[in-house]
Amino acid sequence: MLTDVSGVNIPSLTAGQFATVYNLFSLVIASMLFTALFLLLSRGRVAPRYRNALVVSAIVCGIAAYHYFRIFSNFSESYPPGSSVSAPHNLSNIEFNEAYRYVDWLLTVPLLLVETVAVMALGRVAQRGLLYKLVPASALMILLGYPGEIATSVGSRALWGALSTIPFIYLLYVLFVELSRSLVRQPVEVQHTIKMLRLALVGLWGVYPIAYLFPMIGGEFFGGASGFVLRQGGYSLADIFAKAAYGLAIYKVARVKSGLEDPTYSDDELVPDTTSRDVRV
Amino acid sequence: MLTDVSGVNIPSLTAGQFATVYNLFSLVIASMLFTALFLLLSRGRVAPRYRNALVVSAIVCGIAAYHYFRIFSNFSESYPPGSSVSAPHNLSNIEFNEAYRYVDWLLTVPLLLVETVAVMALGRVAQRGLLYKLVPASALMILLGYPGEIATSVGSRALWGALSTIPFIYLLYVLFVELSRSLVRQPVEVQHTIKMLRLALVGLWGVYPIAYLFPMIGGEFFGGASGFVLRQGGYSLADIFAKAAYGLAIYKVARVKSGLEDPTYSDDELVPDTTSRDVRV
Repeated sequence: MLTDVSGVNIPSLTAGQFATVYNLFSLVIASMLFTALFLLLSRGRVAPRYRNALVVSAIVCGIAAYHYFRIFSNFSESYPPGSSVSAPHNLSNIEFNEAYRYVDWLLTVPLLLVETVAVMALGRVAQRGLLYKLVPASALMILLGYPGEIATSVGSRALWGALSTIPFIYLLYVLFVELSRSLVRQPVEVQHTIKMLRLALVGLWGVYPIAYLFPMIGGEFFGGASGFVLRQGGYSLADIFAKAAYGLAIYKVARVKSGLEDPTYSDDELVPDTTSRDVRV
Repeated sequence: MLTDVSGVNIPSLTAGQFATVYNLFSLVIASMLFTALFLLLSRGRVAPRYRNALVVSAIVCGIAAYHYFRIFSNFSESYPPGSSVSAPHNLSNIEFNEAYRYVDWLLTVPLLLVETVAVMALGRVAQRGLLYKLVPASALMILLGYPGEIATSVGSRALWGALSTIPFIYLLYVLFVELSRSLVRQPVEVQHTIKMLRLALVGLWGVYPIAYLFPMIGGEFFGGASGFVLRQGGYSLADIFAKAAYGLAIYKVARVKSGLEDPTYSDDELVPDTTSRDVRV
């Protein structure tokens, strides 16, 4: 048990297990694709200085949608249907490729930090200072996790997992100590939301290491098909919250700040608005 | 009869039954895709405060189009052609996946309520108050329906159906009691349309539980291939009315209100309009 990692190439899934993962993947595709579209179409509803945060949020969802299209097809090919609709889906000669997730995270995790800093609209120097720390650390965190994900021994999985935790702890320090200095200069109306965003980011990122641990815990449940379903489900839901729902929360912050800075951006209400002469798209 | 649900995995469809469902699915794809496109292209014809309602309506149709593309392919694979064009289409080893519908509804039903509230352009507080009730209740209604849809016994189908009805009744209360208070502040020109919208929403949603009941009614018709065709047809037509036609009605309300608030938006008439200062896109 301690020298070999189970749970990586699951030999067989029941029809119900296959359907659960399959439908969750499709849910992620729809969520990411249409959140990206919504964010792009809503750029005109925030002040110009916040539009980049929306574009980056849309790009994050777009990258995730691309990878989930790949994961969805790959999963269908790795676990083709059996002889009947209720037969188990056995692993074919095509590996279920977990690397798609790491490629996705390598691109999207730094960008999630970019969109968070962008929506705060800090001064150029403060923004650059934060991003020069957050972006390389987050990329390093993903890169160090990958060798552990594909490792076949518990020892290397644990080693790379521990190495990946070092940049993660550094990120926590930057987000919760350095970022707090900039937070007090944000409008009070959004301070709470930004704090919640930061907490959501770190809280949701906690799902990934837990799912990463499953094959190490091993045993019939965590090391088998049930653990696989739970891990894929956990990754999928965490991705929806950490990217799509997160992007919508970024949009919300941008909307509130735009309305505070320029009343033409709080134009949803029925109250007659004499200033409304619209030149926005 | 009372312990087992028929009508879930229909073993065979006649060529005519297959063609009916197949063509209805294609009709839904065309309706959803091009209604979404029309709504996006028409944003500039309504005042800025109503554009979000149009974008959300387009997103709803887009999400439905995505799912019907999947349902269409899945249906073709589940019931492949027989030995000749007139031979029956027998169920293959690929299950016809009803979960696509539930994933679709989970995303689109709350958004239909969002677009309805958005087009009313209520004050921020009233809007938030309504959405905080409508969105979770509608998501819960869908989530509770799904275990019943895939249940293999009549008992669990009935139990989950009944549980799902509780949030539905709550939705009715919010829509017909709480929303009515805001309705009186709408312009008289659209009050009737908004009332009709609300009625259409609830009326069309009634199609889904009826289709849901078919496998419980059972028997040769409702539990067999005819019931399957009727259920898929019912879902398809209800989806066209509840999403595409509904989105167009939302557009109509937005157009009328825009024209009432700003004469530059009633520019369809041939009469020369001296006030027309066009800065819209």
